[in-house]
Amino acid sequence: MAYQVAPLQKLIEHFERLPGIGRKSAQRLAFHVLNMPKERAEDFARCILEAREKIHKCAVCQNLTDEELCPICRDESRDHTTICVVENSQDVLAFERTREYKGVYHVLGGLISPMDGIGPDQLALKELLRRVAEGEVREVIMATNPTVEGEATAMYIARLLKPMGIKVSRLAYGIPVGGNLEYADETTLFRALQGRSEI
Amino acid sequence: MAYQVAPLQKLIEHFERLPGIGRKSAQRLAFHVLNMPKERAEDFARCILEAREKIHKCAVCQNLTDEELCPICRDESRDHTTICVVENSQDVLAFERTREYKGVYHVLGGLISPMDGIGPDQLALKELLRRVAEGEVREVIMATNPTVEGEATAMYIARLLKPMGIKVSRLAYGIPVGGNLEYADETTLFRALQGRSEI
Repeated sequence: MAYQVAPLQKLIEHFERLPGIGRKSAQRLAFHVLNMPKERAEDFARCILEAREKIHKCAVCQNLTDEELCPICRDESRDHTTICVVENSQDVLAFERTREYKGVYHVLGGLISPMDGIGPDQLALKELLRRVAEGEVREVIMATNPTVEGEATAMYIARLLKPMGIKVSRLAYGIPVGGNLEYADETTLFRALQGRSEI
Repeated sequence: MAYQVAPLQKLIEHFERLPGIGRKSAQRLAFHVLNMPKERAEDFARCILEAREKIHKCAVCQNLTDEELCPICRDESRDHTTICVVENSQDVLAFERTREYKGVYHVLGGLISPMDGIGPDQLALKELLRRVAEGEVREVIMATNPTVEGEATAMYIARLLKPMGIKVSRLAYGIPVGGNLEYADETTLFRALQGRSEI
């Protein structure tokens, strides 16, 4: 645009770089920040800095935390013999929302993807193997996404873990709850059929 | 959620308060900030503060600027005898994107809305009347939104300006370019018919 107000333009650009935010939304967000009460804007800026500074990976499960161990690893009422292996911290939040899973997690920090140059060495695999080697773990649930990379990663890790004499499982495939059979793709339908259970 | 990492939670809440950002997007944005290079996060935080500190209203048109006059009011190549009256700064950006309008603007900072307790006194009307009274202005284009409040505000201002002997105009109503007649509402269609021009 021909006329730019530099500080506003820079703020818009920052918002525009965020995932899922286009040019118009970025403008709307920047104007919203301009109209915020001063204290709120200051607190927002401080929160960005604090989150970056204080948050790091849990020494055990690699989930994000602001202490040495994350709250889930610290919680003695959880079942520490079952580890759910996920790609990232957002996935942990998703499982926690179910309020049903009582075990602990392991966050890989990515998926094996030769196309993006990500090999097993870049994932938190050594940490997972160490946890299992300690002997308390009885089951590892592979909960990576049902994509090519997610499948490959799950298979790779399963092959490493099986010789250690523990149970390795994979999330069930099937029709999403509330979904419509008509719109389900063939692979999902086939997997749902394969995974059918007696009622 | 049962397990919260406080600095992360606070950042998510800040994002969630922004317009058009739901809980899941807020989470996604917060995680994105955590994974940003440190300098970028610091610059983001600084931009929020700077935008708030440095940006204020242009002394003439009330548009946002970081100097005394906004770049449009400063630009002598623009036609200062034509004023386009808009609700807010975003609307100025929208007109500037057309690259066709060569006049200047006046930003009201809102619309008359008795329901929300906003009367003419809360808008930048005195400033507009002063500009017109200085005698250089020949036309004022009312470019408020085609809503009840936008119409009422346009009519109210037009009644104030007409006795001052200048031309007061209103944006044309009609079918949006690229729109589909089938989906146009009756009022728009009727207005498009009324405003038809010879070809």
